[in-house]
Amino acid sequence: MNRSTDMPTVNRRDLLGASVIGLGAGLAGMGAGALIERETSAPPAAGPDTAGLNGSRLEPFHGRHQAGVETSPQTHGLFLSLSLRPETDRSGVTRLLRLLTEDAARLTQGRAPLADPEPELAEDPARLTITFGFGRDLVARAGRRHVPDWLAPLPQFGIDRLRPELCRGDLLLQVCSDDPTTVAHAARMLLKDAEAFTRPAWQKAGFRRAYGSDPAGTTARNLFGQVDGTSNPAAGSADFARLVWGETGSGQQFGPRGAPPTDLATDYPDWLVGGTSLVLRDIAMNLDTWDEVDRPGREFSVGRSLSTGAPLTGEHEFDIPDLSATTEAGLKVISPVSHVARSRNVDEPAEQIHRRVYNYHSIPITGEVSEGGMMFASYQASIHRQFLPIQRRLDEADLLNAWTSPIGSTVWAIPPGCDAGDYIGSRLLEA
Amino acid sequence: MNRSTDMPTVNRRDLLGASVIGLGAGLAGMGAGALIERETSAPPAAGPDTAGLNGSRLEPFHGRHQAGVETSPQTHGLFLSLSLRPETDRSGVTRLLRLLTEDAARLTQGRAPLADPEPELAEDPARLTITFGFGRDLVARAGRRHVPDWLAPLPQFGIDRLRPELCRGDLLLQVCSDDPTTVAHAARMLLKDAEAFTRPAWQKAGFRRAYGSDPAGTTARNLFGQVDGTSNPAAGSADFARLVWGETGSGQQFGPRGAPPTDLATDYPDWLVGGTSLVLRDIAMNLDTWDEVDRPGREFSVGRSLSTGAPLTGEHEFDIPDLSATTEAGLKVISPVSHVARSRNVDEPAEQIHRRVYNYHSIPITGEVSEGGMMFASYQASIHRQFLPIQRRLDEADLLNAWTSPIGSTVWAIPPGCDAGDYIGSRLLEA
Ligand code: HEM
Ligand code: HEM
Repeated sequence: MNRSTDMPTVNRRDLLGASVIGLGAGLAGMGAGALIERETSAPPAAGPDTAGLNGSRLEPFHGRHQAGVETSPQTHGLFLSLSLRPETDRSGVTRLLRLLTEDAARLTQGRAPLADPEPELAEDPARLTITFGFGRDLVARAGRRHVPDWLAPLPQFGIDRLRPELCRGDLLLQVCSDDPTTVAHAARMLLKDAEAFTRPAWQKAGFRRAYGSDPAGTTARNLFGQVDGTSNPAAGSADFARLVWGETGSGQQFGPRGAPPTDLATDYPDWLVGGTSLVLRDIAMNLDTWDEVDRPGREFSVGRSLSTGAPLTGEHEFDIPDLSATTEAGLKVISPVSHVARSRNVDEPAEQIHRRVYNYHSIPITGEVSEGGMMFASYQASIHRQFLPIQRRLDEADLLNAWTSPIGSTVWAIPPGCDAGDYIGSRLLEA
Repeated sequence: MNRSTDMPTVNRRDLLGASVIGLGAGLAGMGAGALIERETSAPPAAGPDTAGLNGSRLEPFHGRHQAGVETSPQTHGLFLSLSLRPETDRSGVTRLLRLLTEDAARLTQGRAPLADPEPELAEDPARLTITFGFGRDLVARAGRRHVPDWLAPLPQFGIDRLRPELCRGDLLLQVCSDDPTTVAHAARMLLKDAEAFTRPAWQKAGFRRAYGSDPAGTTARNLFGQVDGTSNPAAGSADFARLVWGETGSGQQFGPRGAPPTDLATDYPDWLVGGTSLVLRDIAMNLDTWDEVDRPGREFSVGRSLSTGAPLTGEHEFDIPDLSATTEAGLKVISPVSHVARSRNVDEPAEQIHRRVYNYHSIPITGEVSEGGMMFASYQASIHRQFLPIQRRLDEADLLNAWTSPIGSTVWAIPPGCDAGDYIGSRLLEA
């Protein structure tokens, strides 16, 4: 696609006819000037007026890893799944990824893309990140590489209530920012440039607490009112590098003692080193039936206090849950079928994932009170070794299942980041 | 409705059977304690950790006017339209409004309502306001008062592409906050308490720039990239009181010179003194065809610069548009059919409205690039004297009409505020 096809094709003269030509000449330079000024100017600097402002804060785009994974979650998250058009071949995929990388590199740094018709809406990135995920078919169309075996739909689980239309897509764009206008504008720009190569498959927008609502570092709550995200590897830690980025490129450390090392060719191809995998589950949460349960019952079902997020065996949010502690009557304090007991594998510390969830909520016109849920985003180096054992256990038994149903499910390869001049996916496409 | 019907009816014992009774006794008091503590505790105070935080900021609920009109617009706005159930009579309406007033008085001050199952989600009001609007049928069911003639659907306009399902409703709840989680939680609580008396008619959620993105006082942009809201009466000004709250209770000042004074009985009933009217139009904006127009053409259609929002006859945003200025060629600099020229009546300064709009944007799975628009909320003392002349002119001619279509339209009486112990609408219901 030629980017010039995005340039304006209707002008004022078309609107009103020849009678306004004189005026047109006087103003004609204005728009282009503003675009170029925007294009070459630095992102808005924080002057005295903008102290404490969040609009101009930037997350780096270039680097070894893509942003939007280890990044402290922004307020708004839009998950945009695109299906490649049948005619988009390897060279089309390459052009698409070059174009979108260029857009993302600019938008995230507060600079409007060249063809942006509303460059002013790009001025407040507010920590905008744009993260690319590749689906099986995109990797297959790249044509030169083995498609990892895990880059496929998850096995079907008993709890699943999947809607096929929410399980599709070849390219994921995860657009996150603390500003909702920024998300809307970035998504539009990306979609415009992707249009010649893709069609939207589905989209889901979610939210967390606003920037500035809570002190930095506060773990957010989901719509069940639970503190959600406590047991996550800390950003910047060695655990995070090992569990999420799989830095060694081996996967070996995720195997249970004695198991054979993972086959690198299928499990962790070299084009993915510095990247990770994403399991994205759209999980409906029945807020109405959840609310019918009393507070101790709700705390019991997870194994943590609703008010503090502390495990029922502790006092503070980050206390380690003691899954063996018993009451005087000899019962487990944290129920063995609670969500925490089922999702936590104390015997295999490598069996951990990085969760970065976004809530959604809307009010249907059906007489029901509300439609709530979360986009459950789980990043991990190995789906087989980290995500699946947990999901299998939760599928077998988890009190929380009474109020939650997965309705959408997709799996994505999150390629590594890129340097300036390079594009996301180059190692896959230029092998 | 008895509020106790909202209390939890399932407990942990129901979940797991008698084997966990011992544990239940130990934890049973916990939830109730947390609820009561929340109920009696003051809103979160700003301590050293929370300096600059927005979560604990409050907008007053009680007072002569309802909040959410003169209030500087928050980031998120949810418009929730409810239809009264057939069996909801005058006493039902009274109970409903008492209940919702109590909820709103608490939620906006960061205190969870008594029956709130997720009281922690009420902890960050982030300037939450909840504004009540009454539709024609609600006032009629109140039974004792004349229904104002303007409290009815607007006349049909040529530009309208109205969808009947977006034009219904008897009670409007406008829920605005800088935090999206707060909006979702407040809306749910209100809907739960309204459920016995109403059914949802429609809802629409919109957004503006995030708190902290821009310096305070920056006029926000809509999704056309326009600075939108410049020519609005200033909050706190005498103009605002006169134009929006109609403080004299007369409406006389809105008549063109020589016109008879407005009939107070129909136009400004005494139960509405201290209140105002709201015209809420759901206006679809065709972002795709808008983007096809070059920048001078887009500026011409409104009469203002896209980059600064200044009138084409000025330099700065708040310069007064000079509708008579001409170019050397003798053409008007601000086109007579531009949006600004058509919406501005220089001969009748009382013909002004207060606009408080929210953008919306979603990506349909239809191959089109996006579905954008705005909830256009216009507050004014008199719909006849202020809103309608403007809307009629825009309907006749306005370049902007090429890209905008009203798809929803409702009219609301915004009753005055109330003091502690009173409820919104008491003057209507207890005459
Ligand atoms: C709507 C669905 C879900 C809800 C409401 C939910 C909620 C929670 C909550 C409240 C916690 C405790 C606090 C924390 O550590 O973050 C938690 C922990 C956890 N959840 Fe979920 N969860 C959901 C789905 C899932 C799914 C689908 C998985 C994976 C397949 C999962 C895996 C985990 C893991 C691994 C932990 C940490 C356990 C630990 O090591 O302590 N959750 N979840
Ligand atoms: C999607 C639809 C609309 C868009 C995009 C839009 C946009 C704008 C813009 C950019 C301005 C100039 C800046 C400002 O003063 O805020 C403006 C002004 C104005 N608009 Fe609209 N508008 C829309 C619909 C309406 C409607 C339906 C009405 C009333 C029926 C209206 C009434 C006004 C008025 C009264 C002004 C101020 C004019 C003045 O006194 O200078 N607008 N609008």
